Order: sequence, then structure tokens, then C-alpha cells
Amino acid sequence: MTKIKLLIGRDDPGLRERVQAASDRIEVVTAEQLKEQPGLLGELEIVYGGLGREQLPRAGKLRWLQTGGAGVNGLLTPELRASEVVLTNASGIHAEPIAEHMFGMLLMRTRRLAEAWDQQKTREWRGYAFGENVGMLAGMTLGVLGVGAIGGHSARVGKGFGMRVIGLRRTGAPHPDVERMYSQDERLEFFRESDVVMNSLPLTEGTRHAMGWDEFAVMKPAAIVINTGRGGTIHTDALVAALREGRLGAALLDVTDPEPLPEDHPLWTMENVFITPHYSGAHPGYWERADRIFLENLRRYLAGEELVNVVDKREGY
Amino acid sequence: MTKIKLLIGRDDPGLRERVQAASDRIEVVTAEQLKEQPGLLGELEIVYGGLGREQLPRAGKLRWLQTGGAGVNGLLTPELRASEVVLTNASGIHAEPIAEHMFGMLLMRTRRLAEAWDQQKTREWRGYAFGENVGMLAGMTLGVLGVGAIGGHSARVGKGFGMRVIGLRRTGAPHPDVERMYSQDERLEFFRESDVVMNSLPLTEGTRHAMGWDEFAVMKPAAIVINTGRGGTIHTDALVAALREGRLGAALLDVTDPEPLPEDHPLWTMENVFITPHYSGAHPGYWERADRIFLENLRRYLAGEELVNVVDKREGY
Repeated sequence: MTKIKLLIGRDDPGLRERVQAASDRIEVVTAEQLKEQPGLLGELEIVYGGLGREQLPRAGKLRWLQTGGAGVNGLLTPELRASEVVLTNASGIHAEPIAEHMFGMLLMRTRRLAEAWDQQKTREWRGYAFGENVGMLAGMTLGVLGVGAIGGHSARVGKGFGMRVIGLRRTGAPHPDVERMYSQDERLEFFRESDVVMNSLPLTEGTRHAMGWDEFAVMKPAAIVINTGRGGTIHTDALVAALREGRLGAALLDVTDPEPLPEDHPLWTMENVFITPHYSGAHPGYWERADRIFLENLRRYLAGEELVNVVDKREGY
Repeated sequence: MTKIKLLIGRDDPGLRERVQAASDRIEVVTAEQLKEQPGLLGELEIVYGGLGREQLPRAGKLRWLQTGGAGVNGLLTPELRASEVVLTNASGIHAEPIAEHMFGMLLMRTRRLAEAWDQQKTREWRGYAFGENVGMLAGMTLGVLGVGAIGGHSARVGKGFGMRVIGLRRTGAPHPDVERMYSQDERLEFFRESDVVMNSLPLTEGTRHAMGWDEFAVMKPAAIVINTGRGGTIHTDALVAALREGRLGAALLDVTDPEPLPEDHPLWTMENVFITPHYSGAHPGYWERADRIFLENLRRYLAGEELVNVVDKREGY
């Protein structure tokens, strides 16, 4: 009986054991082995991470590709889209960490905590210098851009803080923690209303430059934009211009376009910009949670059942 | 008719006008005037800020003292305690800003945002360096120490983040957003359970060193302590020892003992300490909200009604 060759991209002996224990029909291939025998690429049936888009054309027997992250825009070549390969991701496990990251960046800005952190290094107690110009979330309008797992949890947290929560969602379908949901047609109204925009959009044909010249043009001059989705959902030149011209309060970015951000990019040094290098989804127990999805899918695959977390390759998420 | 002399400590012409408009029985005294004519001190009947504890013994006609803040430990001399002067404060208006400040400090720590802020200055994109050792609030146990307006709002926010919220309250009386409330007798159990302690206690005889050697001894080695109450509610030496010996994860302090913290104090430079100089209560519209309480009380005072926000001088808050 031909074995099912399964690539595990991560070097994790415990995971290898658990995968192997799932069935003796499986033959685990490690990233190391693939490097030594590149010919194995054409024999892989299942891949759990560790494959770049440039390798996909030579993975002729691939039937199922599971990623360890959520965004799949980097993998979705026209060929993969057109193929019968099933693409699954780890969407859902990022809701809490990314929402926490966004509120952390936001509060660091509104409470002037970065300035206090710099000030601590001088060992000087300057209480009255900090009391001015702090902002308060309670009473602000939080605009959740993309109301999936991350956006939904962010809405719940925002409500806890006493923010008024509005959302923008293609379908305009309601969400229990979103007071008013805007549809795509009403998007400028959504941006006009928001004091804070939390963007956790995936990058698809429909979301590229979801925030561009038109959107920044209607936003409040003190509004704060947070992006933990994909850099390309924001038109970088339009963002930089809005910040430069005082038409936007701040940009707090975990993702950028281009990414990584080149050393000479103006965003690095702009006064109202805070950058974290694309780690908002990281959290303790990340791989346990991602592996749980993969192992459940492996069980389903072997049993001929439908997989969970299947990406709609046409929609791109 | 003798006028009611009323000191307004803040130089705010708009407030003076509103106070004067409340009744022509009132004669407003400004801080400036008091400085020029110190004899006025003995004629004041009402004071809204601007009086130090050392001046109190000479304010012989004082009947009502309203503060602009919440903590009154700095004013509560034995003489004031024994006197018939009614003491009122602005407690309640600090709930949102202080809860926001505490969660900002907490997330800055768990999401490693201070390190990212320092890193941004080098213009280097080091994504993988940050993915490790981040913490996640969801699933952690939040211990709310002192469940008043601030603690109650913090409990609500913590619940929104998916934390398990426990509380410590002298009476042990329940609160809708606190899953389990501990009483004073069970306090070591409360500290043993908490991953994060948010302390917003007032400083009274009963709360001095509420967190001391015994409490730190039972806490989890990774636990995070946040203090926005009063510095003296924590035994500083016990805190420093726990941090030094790796028995505590971090201390995030908006208040310290002593305060201001002297330049050579070890807390300034300890790796796991973040200090903001006592401004967690600041927020936009602070004085509008504080003045609203004072003006309502002034209306009540003139009408002979009972005042709101009266401090129990024996309890100290």
C-alpha cells in the first residue's frame, strides 16, 4: 500500500509522533528530509506548513495544504486557486491575542505610556507633565473593520471599555457586540463616524486598499488607525499623507506595505506612528492550538469527512 | 447679611462665574486673594481645592471641604477627622480612565510593546524576535483588589477580555462582574490565585501595606502587580525583594511609596518595573466632571440638603 506522504514544516518531534500515531498509512516527511531529497516534493499528499509559493508548482500530488497562520494571500497563486488542492488555515486562534495587541497599542497611545516609558529612563518624576492630552476610550466610537473572529472579539472588548462599537462588513449582517453594522456601500459613513478604526481584514482582491485616499479624506483629524490584518489593505501613500498633513491622529501598525518596512521608510520615524513587527497573533500555546486544528483535520481527512477551516480560494480567506 | 466665603483653588474664571451665579449669598475667594490676604483663611466656610493640610488648623469657620480628586489620605489630619467639617471628594469620575490606564500598562507588558517601541527607534524589522514570551489575558485570573468604582469597571473590562475575575473586598459582598469575591479573612487565597492584581485601594489605616511580605510570599512567580491606588498600600521593600528574587513577574506602578520616587530608588531601573508618575486618573473633561459634582453639592448645601460623595472620615474614603 502506498503511504500518504505528509510534510510537517516545523521541527517538533512531539507533533511528528502524534501525526504518526494517527495512522500507519502516513509517512511523515520533515523539512530536513525535503531539503536533502527535493524529489519528495512531487510525492507529498498533505502539507502542514513549510512550503513556499514557489515550490507549489512542483507539488503535483498535493491534495491538502494546512497553514499554521490565518492569512493565505502569500500562498494563493492563480495555479493553487485553479487547482483542486484543499486549503485550510488556523483562523480563529488569533482572536484574543490580536484583539489584546490592538487594545494594547491603542491604550499605549491614549494614555501616553510610550512617553512615560521613555521618561522612566531619566528617573525623573514629572506627574503634571503627563496629565494633559490623554484620551479616554469610554465614549469613543470604535469602528471594527472586518467583523470576523478578531473583529468580533475586539467589539466585545470595546463594549466592555464603554466604547460605542460600529462595524463594517461586506454583507452588513449584524453582530451581537456591534451597535450598528455598515455595509460596503455605506463605508465612507463608517470611516466618518469612527474615532478608532481596528482593521483586521485579510488581503484579497476586494480588500486591497480598503483604506485609501477617499477613506482618509473623510476621517476625523484625531482618529486612530490600527492595522493587524495585512499591510496591503491600507494605501500606504494615502496614510502617510494624512498623517503628514494632520488629517489623522495616529497609525498603530503591526503590518505594513511594504513589509518588512525598509530602513529608510518615513513611517519608522513619524511622530504619530507606532510599529510592531507583525507579531500580534503570537501568544502562549499558539502551536498547541494550531496543531489541534490540524490534527482534527487529519482525522477527518483519513475518515473521508469534510475538513474544518477551509479557505474559500476565490474569496481569499 | 454675612456672605458665605468660598475658596476656589483652581484659576478658572468660568467656574468662578458659575459658582457666583449659584447664589448672591456667596463670595468667591481665589487662591490669589488668599495668598495676598492670609487672614481670609479664618473666614472660609466652603473650600473647593487649593488648601493644604498645614492650613487646615487655621480655617476655623470651615464647614465643607470638597476635593477635586478621590484620595483624601493627604488631608485627613486627626483634627479634621475629629471636626464637624464635611469632607466630599470626586470619587467615581476616575473609574474609566484608571481602568484604561491599568489595562494599558498590563497589555504593554504582556504584548512586549515597550520593547517594540525601543526597537522602532533602530528602524529594524525583527518580527521573529518578538513572537516569544508574549502573554495572553484571555484565560488569566484577574484579581481586583478593592472593588469600588474603579475596581468594578476593571472587572467588567477584564471579563470582556475573557479573563476570570476574582475580587477582594472587606465585606466580601458580591459584584456582578466578579466571579468570586474573597473577604479579608481569605486574602492570602486571593493573592495565591491571581495572575494579575489590580490595586486601586484608597490609603487608610486598614489598607496600609495591604500587599506586604505575607502577600508577596504566596503570589505566583509570574504574577503582575498593578497599583493605581496609593503607594502606601504596598510595602515597597517587600515588593522590591519579590521582584529581585524572581518571586514576582512585574510591577506596573502609577503610585509609589515614597512618592515622588527619589532619583536613586531601585524601582526606577528594575527590569520588570514600569512607572507612570501618578496620572492614571487624568482624562479629557476631568474638571468638567469634577466641577459637576461640586456644583451639585453647592446647590444641595445652599438648599440645606445632604451632600453627595461624602467621605467617611473614620474609614478614610
